[in-house]
Amino acid sequence: MMTEDTICAISTAPGMGAIAVIRMAGDKAFEIGDKVFRPAGKAKKLHEQNANSTHFGTIYDDDKDLDEVLVTIFKAPHSFTGEDIIEIACHGAPYIQQQLLQLLVKKGARMARPGEFTQRAFLNGKMDLSQAEAVADLIASENEAARRVALQQMRGGFSSELSTLRERLLWFISLIELELDFSEEDVEFANRDELTKLVNEIEAHLSRLINSFSLGNAIKNGIPVAIVGHTNAGKSTLLNALLNEERAIVSEIHGTTRDAIEDTINIGGVTFRFIDTAGIRTTADKIENLGIKLTYSKMSQAAIVLLLVDATDSQQKICDAINNVKSKIDAERQHLIVVVNKIDLIDQPQSLPITAMLTPQKNSSVVTISAKKHVNMDQLTNELLKTISLQAIDNNEVVVTNARHHEALSNAHEGILRVKEGLASGISGDFLAQDIREVLHYLGTITGQISTDEVLGNIFKNFCIGK
Amino acid sequence: MMTEDTICAISTAPGMGAIAVIRMAGDKAFEIGDKVFRPAGKAKKLHEQNANSTHFGTIYDDDKDLDEVLVTIFKAPHSFTGEDIIEIACHGAPYIQQQLLQLLVKKGARMARPGEFTQRAFLNGKMDLSQAEAVADLIASENEAARRVALQQMRGGFSSELSTLRERLLWFISLIELELDFSEEDVEFANRDELTKLVNEIEAHLSRLINSFSLGNAIKNGIPVAIVGHTNAGKSTLLNALLNEERAIVSEIHGTTRDAIEDTINIGGVTFRFIDTAGIRTTADKIENLGIKLTYSKMSQAAIVLLLVDATDSQQKICDAINNVKSKIDAERQHLIVVVNKIDLIDQPQSLPITAMLTPQKNSSVVTISAKKHVNMDQLTNELLKTISLQAIDNNEVVVTNARHHEALSNAHEGILRVKEGLASGISGDFLAQDIREVLHYLGTITGQISTDEVLGNIFKNFCIGK
Repeated sequence: MMTEDTICAISTAPGMGAIAVIRMAGDKAFEIGDKVFRPAGKAKKLHEQNANSTHFGTIYDDDKDLDEVLVTIFKAPHSFTGEDIIEIACHGAPYIQQQLLQLLVKKGARMARPGEFTQRAFLNGKMDLSQAEAVADLIASENEAARRVALQQMRGGFSSELSTLRERLLWFISLIELELDFSEEDVEFANRDELTKLVNEIEAHLSRLINSFSLGNAIKNGIPVAIVGHTNAGKSTLLNALLNEERAIVSEIHGTTRDAIEDTINIGGVTFRFIDTAGIRTTADKIENLGIKLTYSKMSQAAIVLLLVDATDSQQKICDAINNVKSKIDAERQHLIVVVNKIDLIDQPQSLPITAMLTPQKNSSVVTISAKKHVNMDQLTNELLKTISLQAIDNNEVVVTNARHHEALSNAHEGILRVKEGLASGISGDFLAQDIREVLHYLGTITGQISTDEVLGNIFKNFCIGK
Repeated sequence: MMTEDTICAISTAPGMGAIAVIRMAGDKAFEIGDKVFRPAGKAKKLHEQNANSTHFGTIYDDDKDLDEVLVTIFKAPHSFTGEDIIEIACHGAPYIQQQLLQLLVKKGARMARPGEFTQRAFLNGKMDLSQAEAVADLIASENEAARRVALQQMRGGFSSELSTLRERLLWFISLIELELDFSEEDVEFANRDELTKLVNEIEAHLSRLINSFSLGNAIKNGIPVAIVGHTNAGKSTLLNALLNEERAIVSEIHGTTRDAIEDTINIGGVTFRFIDTAGIRTTADKIENLGIKLTYSKMSQAAIVLLLVDATDSQQKICDAINNVKSKIDAERQHLIVVVNKIDLIDQPQSLPITAMLTPQKNSSVVTISAKKHVNMDQLTNELLKTISLQAIDNNEVVVTNARHHEALSNAHEGILRVKEGLASGISGDFLAQDIREVLHYLGTITGQISTDEVLGNIFKNFCIGK
């Protein structure tokens, strides 16, 4: 077990701040701490101090004073990793942070790998694997929905659902195995009708979790929205209008975390990624150039296609545009929102047959706005939010956001379908048991009851150092 | 007094980290803390908890859970600012940091101004002004010397020197003022010979402090070094060689704190700023173009001029180069180091009369190296370090690094010279007392015994937020 080393890392963001926190965890955390820290008051050893207490003092590199710091003590097993931990809050000069880290290494600690503290928390049973993964998701969360889902998962919401599923399956398998023990007597402890009912329930449950991934993924990575339409339909005005509505929420967060390649706008706690497209010129029915081809290609990646039309255009032109885009999108997985812009420029709204045109189309709606005058912008943002069902989040339901979990759930789902078939066709108990064990295996990989070093390595390497 | 507000700020570096720390200080710190924090264990109020204790729990925005955090409690007056303080260590997502900060503001705190925590520490008598300024210097320190000087100042080294000076002057002035009370009787309580001795001592002391500023400033801002010489003398090889020797120290620090405009190299804990210059072509005696003029202009800004010559060149060419540069530098304030490079390319060192050429020149020396083969590089770095007297730092003497202090000390010094003159010319006690009071005034502005809102505003506006 790697918990024999004492590890250390800078846990706060890189760069200069008022303070920085350096964390050290492991058997020798107090011993190494005593070598470098001299408390301002009575010179007690760190292990003699109360758990969860903070002490002012000076860090010394032998006789040289390095910095005045606050040291907080956490005692095993009541700490994040389950080990002895000290956290040193020093002055936030990068130079001092580095010197202090190097000093701890010189005195016997080792630099922590990315996510190694959380990995130890997992290995020491302080959290399961899906909770550990949620820690990284929480740190990376850039909007309200992502934060909520990650926090819920970190607090064990997902784990308890999975554990309920596993328990029900374990009960199932124990009955089947009992039958196998008495196989010569041809008894049936597990009532096949009840089992079928249970398997159906579990299958529905897994399906729900798997389906939640499209929402979870959208929450985590942002929902791709392609704005298409004639170049003069007001695309940039629309984007600016949306940005203005939400600037207070967006600006402070994005500048610090990522370069804007696309316009991302946070609406109602959800991030929408607006994909840049060239204008579509619908000259009769012919695609004219590569730019337009590219637009269609980008449109196909979007979850929402926002078709912007100009209210001052002729009815024919508008209808052509709608029909054109309608023919290009996949109504099963893409939402179409027709946005009739510039209604401030016309005296009376045309009675466009848009709603009628869209009626046979699933997942489609129409909004009439003026981006320039900020008319009906809230209707548009509501339509955007309606395309994703945030109800699951509001109800505190479990939403799967992690591709690894999604894969494991899908594999478990395949297994449960085989169980269902097996039950229908009346296959023997040992085959049934084998399929159920496979389901249990996949569910176990999510929470980490079953894990390999390779899987763990892949998970934790994406963490930041110091967590 | 501004300490009636409760203030809050993110104290760790901006951006994403494993954790971030939000600090809240003021009368309502615990009250606001109780509104948002629910501890995991027994639901004690924060003021009922022990001082300097850390508590795990959840931050709630009314009914919505925002994050799981650690809250550390510091109770007035035993805290950094002297007020009640709580520090919230949350997950380091910028989004969560912002949400938490906004929540504290919603519940009654105010966003702190830059340096406002330290300003309160000063106003509440936890530290004097020079110590408060040292906090900012410590956070900005990029090398060992800067860190040491700042830490010494923060821990009160400077303050105690100044307070000794002030005490001696106060004793002086009290005797003079006693004389004034008895002025009609023409008594002399203050022995003028002893006073003259004391004033001389103080004058010498102030002179030493003022002179230390050239070192202090160099430590704080880096020591400007101009490398000049023929373009083929090996300038970039030399810079690379210096960088290689020290890369371990330099690389981790600089990338995180500033864009490299010049090459800065940390040697022996001191930062040297190598100023880029065009090569100097000494064709007979004529300056040929603007590039060379610019080189001379940059050379004049340098504290050290490093003249690189090529050992394979003719003796005449080398001597010309030395004479040329010698004539351009100010020997009073600039050091000249002649670096004879490429000694690996010659069989026998030429017996160059360099030392003789430099002999009448103050502050000059010669080193023979091969930058390419790393021969004698340590001699060169020693010569660079010798140009600044680090003895003061090694002896833990007070080094003035702050331009404001330098100005106040210079003003105090002018005052003490007037006192000295006055004593020599036997002016009356009331004039003497006036000059001494001026000296006391200037010394008082350094430690902040005398300060204006404007001065404080100028000092603290340059702090980072959260300190």
